[in-house]
Amino acid sequence: MAAQTLDDLPTPALILDRAILRRNLKRMSDRLRDAGVALRPHLKTAKSVEIGRMAVDGHDGRITVSTLAEARYFADGGFTDILYGVGIVPSKLPAVADLRRRGVNLRVVTDSAAVARAIADAATDGDTFSVFIEIDSGAGRAGLPWPELPGLLEIARILQAAPGVELAGVMTHAGHSYHESTPEGVAAVAERERQAIVGAAEALRAAGLPCPIVSAGSTPTAVHSRDFTGITEMRPGVYVFNDLDQECIGACGPQDIALSVLASVIGHYPHRNQMLVDAGALALSKDISAQEFRPQVGFGTIVDAPVKDMAVVACSQEHGFVGAPDPLPFGNLPIGSRVRVLPNHACITAAAYDRYYVVDSEVDGGRSVVDVYDRINGW
Amino acid sequence: MAAQTLDDLPTPALILDRAILRRNLKRMSDRLRDAGVALRPHLKTAKSVEIGRMAVDGHDGRITVSTLAEARYFADGGFTDILYGVGIVPSKLPAVADLRRRGVNLRVVTDSAAVARAIADAATDGDTFSVFIEIDSGAGRAGLPWPELPGLLEIARILQAAPGVELAGVMTHAGHSYHESTPEGVAAVAERERQAIVGAAEALRAAGLPCPIVSAGSTPTAVHSRDFTGITEMRPGVYVFNDLDQECIGACGPQDIALSVLASVIGHYPHRNQMLVDAGALALSKDISAQEFRPQVGFGTIVDAPVKDMAVVACSQEHGFVGAPDPLPFGNLPIGSRVRVLPNHACITAAAYDRYYVVDSEVDGGRSVVDVYDRINGW
Repeated sequence: MAAQTLDDLPTPALILDRAILRRNLKRMSDRLRDAGVALRPHLKTAKSVEIGRMAVDGHDGRITVSTLAEARYFADGGFTDILYGVGIVPSKLPAVADLRRRGVNLRVVTDSAAVARAIADAATDGDTFSVFIEIDSGAGRAGLPWPELPGLLEIARILQAAPGVELAGVMTHAGHSYHESTPEGVAAVAERERQAIVGAAEALRAAGLPCPIVSAGSTPTAVHSRDFTGITEMRPGVYVFNDLDQECIGACGPQDIALSVLASVIGHYPHRNQMLVDAGALALSKDISAQEFRPQVGFGTIVDAPVKDMAVVACSQEHGFVGAPDPLPFGNLPIGSRVRVLPNHACITAAAYDRYYVVDSEVDGGRSVVDVYDRINGW
Repeated sequence: MAAQTLDDLPTPALILDRAILRRNLKRMSDRLRDAGVALRPHLKTAKSVEIGRMAVDGHDGRITVSTLAEARYFADGGFTDILYGVGIVPSKLPAVADLRRRGVNLRVVTDSAAVARAIADAATDGDTFSVFIEIDSGAGRAGLPWPELPGLLEIARILQAAPGVELAGVMTHAGHSYHESTPEGVAAVAERERQAIVGAAEALRAAGLPCPIVSAGSTPTAVHSRDFTGITEMRPGVYVFNDLDQECIGACGPQDIALSVLASVIGHYPHRNQMLVDAGALALSKDISAQEFRPQVGFGTIVDAPVKDMAVVACSQEHGFVGAPDPLPFGNLPIGSRVRVLPNHACITAAAYDRYYVVDSEVDGGRSVVDVYDRINGW
């Protein structure tokens, strides 16, 4: 069979540029190694063993996941230090214990004394658990809000007192960095993230409790933090691919977006200056996070567009409506021709696909499919 | 193994109430049979052979799909008259021809003379095709805009003249009915949809061209149309499940939503009157279409909520933020307890899942899992 190119693939399809991926991985890997901070990449973005292995190259192999399905998949792929970064509930502990019995150090997260007690109870039959206490460093999502840290010592003491339970440390995620759009703004969030998580670790240690791991990180704060003092590991995720949202935040440049959706032009509507492509709400997702900063990105911008601000401006399930302020280049893009669309939010767009078609812009401009990586979806 | 209940399922999970599903299917089936219009359900919503079979019960088995993956899946499930309702491109014709050679009448759609010529060319090697011409009855998506219908006769003559090509008829989708919120408003859209598609059929017939099938339909227009004269088939889709958006439009009542997402409470944050659940952007989708009419639905409302307007008010990838105007019932919903979330847009929410856990509210209030239906995703 002849080598496949972007012209041969069924559309819509998820395209990954390996050259950009490698640069993104190397940049973060170098930055954190130089800072003396361990890298625990959040593989909720990539959900791919191949990419996970590349991401931890030169590091000790620890990773983060967002679902138990990811935990099982990466365990099957040989990863042995896995942080399940979404607050655990008692009903999920048997699945965690199953993986731990296989020799995988699957670690869990809580911010609840009731859950800490349930973990302690679950450990009484011989199972072991490794637990992080989650801290809210300002994102207003999960975690004990800093600086009050209500219940921190109670939770820590429940865990520490339980045979078979390891208090692994504290973790936080500065998700509010996604709403900053300058390096200075992100750096300020990163410093508050650092103060919160290091403050929580110090509070534990001051009470005579252990806190071996001090875990922080989002892609923006990993990129723009000016001080990692006291942090032992960072958990960036979307940096592997980047996306329009990260570009708007300033966490990457436009040349750093590794992921795109290949689509076919399926209709021309010059009377309203629109084209349709076969990538709609399912192929692109309805995530419009980058519109917070740049409304004209719509549901995704067209790669190498011949006119300015050419984007998917609306979506139905399998139709993407492509528009631009100036007349669209209908003659250059006949029905059946192909375009690539950059994602607003790579993590959400990628979740519609079971594989990456891998190209390499440093080999042949990214025309040929040089590899296929699988992905895990669902729960 | 003991019967599974909603308390045993892993979360998040997609829950389908069979009693509501059956009522929804019967209501539409009866309505169109009474109107003397064939039912060609759009199975882009359900993507399930089991549900497809129930949907066409008492009808002749014709269906609509939105992807070639669906076409292959439903063909494997025994369906033989399938309309692929997204504008065809030449690169997809070999896949269409493959299914047709297996005895499946997979029909395609176009609004382009260039594509019509490509179909005619593809038929020269012995393959056959069945083609609908798409009409834009006001939605502003695909199709020749009515009443001008530019190129209608040219496209029809190309198809009609081509050996092996059948001009199956005309089709339209009144997607703009989704932006109406009164029965009268939807009925007016339905009447324009009818006039457009019947007008296109009459234009073909007046030119001596065949138009055996006159195909229209969205769920709202199928529900609220007052006159089907001249329409031979309707293609509603989301009526099988309904959702918050359809409820806002008035296409169903609150008791008619068959689909929900089962989630676990994973955290309590009384200082900001929020809970977290383990159903976020991937489990619910980022579709917020019902917010056009009712902003308080957020990313989905909580079923049987003990306080008013309790909803998922924000999402990150695997976290749903649950809030309400009044204090949340933290005591009634401890961490680890379960809630169900109604979808804004069932078609998009369901696409994250590979199966439906089927319950039946007429059997035991919907506690037990009585069946599991699979789904096809991707392209």
